[in-house]
Amino acid sequence: MRNKLNIGLFGFGCVGNGLYDVLNKSNLLDASIAKIVVKSAGKKRSIGAEHFSFDKNDILQDEQINVVVELIDDSKAAFEIVSEALSRKKHVVTANKKMLAENLDTLLALAKENNVSLLYEASVGGSIPIIRNLEEYYNNDSLSGVLGIVNGTTNYILTQTNYGKDYETALAEATELGFAESDPTLDVDAYDSKFKLLLLIKHAFGLTLEPTQIFNYGIRNIKPQDVKYATEKGYRLKLFSRGEKVGNRVYGFVSPHFILEDNVAYNVNNEFNSVTVEALFSDKQLFQGKGAGAYPTASAVLSDISALQFDYSYEYKKSLTVDSLEFSNDIELKIYAGSSSIENLDIFQWIEKEETFQGKDYAYITGIINLKNIIGIDFNKKHDVFFAVLPE
Amino acid sequence: MRNKLNIGLFGFGCVGNGLYDVLNKSNLLDASIAKIVVKSAGKKRSIGAEHFSFDKNDILQDEQINVVVELIDDSKAAFEIVSEALSRKKHVVTANKKMLAENLDTLLALAKENNVSLLYEASVGGSIPIIRNLEEYYNNDSLSGVLGIVNGTTNYILTQTNYGKDYETALAEATELGFAESDPTLDVDAYDSKFKLLLLIKHAFGLTLEPTQIFNYGIRNIKPQDVKYATEKGYRLKLFSRGEKVGNRVYGFVSPHFILEDNVAYNVNNEFNSVTVEALFSDKQLFQGKGAGAYPTASAVLSDISALQFDYSYEYKKSLTVDSLEFSNDIELKIYAGSSSIENLDIFQWIEKEETFQGKDYAYITGIINLKNIIGIDFNKKHDVFFAVLPE
Repeated sequence: MRNKLNIGLFGFGCVGNGLYDVLNKSNLLDASIAKIVVKSAGKKRSIGAEHFSFDKNDILQDEQINVVVELIDDSKAAFEIVSEALSRKKHVVTANKKMLAENLDTLLALAKENNVSLLYEASVGGSIPIIRNLEEYYNNDSLSGVLGIVNGTTNYILTQTNYGKDYETALAEATELGFAESDPTLDVDAYDSKFKLLLLIKHAFGLTLEPTQIFNYGIRNIKPQDVKYATEKGYRLKLFSRGEKVGNRVYGFVSPHFILEDNVAYNVNNEFNSVTVEALFSDKQLFQGKGAGAYPTASAVLSDISALQFDYSYEYKKSLTVDSLEFSNDIELKIYAGSSSIENLDIFQWIEKEETFQGKDYAYITGIINLKNIIGIDFNKKHDVFFAVLPE
Repeated sequence: MRNKLNIGLFGFGCVGNGLYDVLNKSNLLDASIAKIVVKSAGKKRSIGAEHFSFDKNDILQDEQINVVVELIDDSKAAFEIVSEALSRKKHVVTANKKMLAENLDTLLALAKENNVSLLYEASVGGSIPIIRNLEEYYNNDSLSGVLGIVNGTTNYILTQTNYGKDYETALAEATELGFAESDPTLDVDAYDSKFKLLLLIKHAFGLTLEPTQIFNYGIRNIKPQDVKYATEKGYRLKLFSRGEKVGNRVYGFVSPHFILEDNVAYNVNNEFNSVTVEALFSDKQLFQGKGAGAYPTASAVLSDISALQFDYSYEYKKSLTVDSLEFSNDIELKIYAGSSSIENLDIFQWIEKEETFQGKDYAYITGIINLKNIIGIDFNKKHDVFFAVLPE
């Protein structure tokens, strides 16, 4: 039996607009958007003003509405909307990774208490059904790792630097193409990738982390010399959201990685996203798709809405046995680190150095470090140092 | 609640052996292999003879066994085993695409009648969870196409020809590496790819086809001149299992395709498999993984067993609304066709020719044909003609 869905939509940006088109102009689902609430009355929109209201209670207090789709930017306002919607026993579909990452357990408890679904496939990897796959298909303990390229903006910039552009030019291009926000901090400093990693780890291993537990280092400080080093060695540069389970320990961090052609993510370029899943016996599997943009995101929202027709909810089976797991940053990594001055690289507390190079105005070291020794440092603010994890 | 699973295993080749190791030597699942039935007593195996019996009734008539895992080669014997197991209200997990493709509706009816699950993720794309994704995630009508590289043997051979080897050398290598069977007909003539396409189409669009409805043309006839043509144009050659829905028509056929770098499957090489899924608004998504081999297949079987713990079964939602769909071969394709004699190429009934080339001992034509005009011809047996679909 399919449930009839009466949707209240918050936000009418690109994604909301795309979703409206699909739902109301096709017979795909037995679902329709009953009300749309937006923040500003003045904005010109693709459909008439009579479709909009500006008071969230028009949706939240409407008992006919059984599904809230939340597609606004402001994560604080989103949290208020989503938690009230859940409390009022409405299912919620959202793409807001920041809000989810910062309030995950609270929201899950609310959803459970009120016996409704909270679905958020669109929050990670755009159109890639990765949450659903981690939840449903890799639903036993056989998973050992997830490795995501989950931020289209930074992947676009890094791809362009691989092609020889410098960071500033590539960032300007990404902004012009609409991939990067006017303030790209959340993207280029890897906060966005971190929020998404937190959700991946929840569904891969069952653990709920706080965003502050996860080290995030982005791509802001990459220099032409670093790109040159990578190119000479045949590396491509990717920003990986990396989660691993070894024994009863779970590791998770976001950092640039140099990878070789043997890595299945080597050809995931520009605005594409991917998640590599490593599981017992199945080797590595790659899920690749468009990660950003209105339509890929709308399609993921659509799939969640579609699943609500059949009473779908995440079951978080892995969280039932999570007590035996602990999160750790005690992991050794082989890295490349470059700076204008070799003294700047002492900050890494090298366990072992493999190569040390000192040129006229640039130096680099490769070798082994331990992540736990550097997690207190905000490398996004250390503009004279760039580092990337090397292949093992 | 998890169900306790008592497994009866048919077949103890690589996959069965791998599965045995995982299940009985780990605590992954609350499941154990109670009995193993094999065909031949004499074979040397990795575990003692006391584990095996040779009478299928030892499993089928054992009421303690609630799950049958069928991993034998012989599709006729497999059909007997699977249908009797279903009739005796045992869940079945199988990887036997030939058996499934030839008896799909019969088996589904049996499973339904007896209220048990028939799961077969391992039958298509090895470790790639494509059946489950088509079934669960793309569970509305938004899908427009599936494009699979689902046969590791032929993909290995084609990759090697892309690297400049001739077909015979590449086939010999594939055999030596254990990818190709001693009689590679099912692989190189694209029967295996066709059986898998039939399953993909069932789960993508809801239609059950007969194997005879689907045109299959493999890679046996590829000549160095064809490879040279492809290389000069920057094409790579892939054997695609291709299913498409346009309006109320479903198309499905297997044929070599020349593709350019803009195709997301361009870098799916050697024994890797992939399925590209095209859906409304989500653009193209690629699922990639190891397609052949004991462990990838065992991992898919393991995921199916794991799902049985939670009473999972395919719901075939799309089959409920399938009456409005019809299968058709009336589709225009742009192809390349080569032969030692240009007269041989008249067989294609060209609707439009774009290029005609005639050399001393080889000729080719590119242009538009209609699939319906050639479906009666077994091109696998026309050794002097090779053709491949071109990018649009």
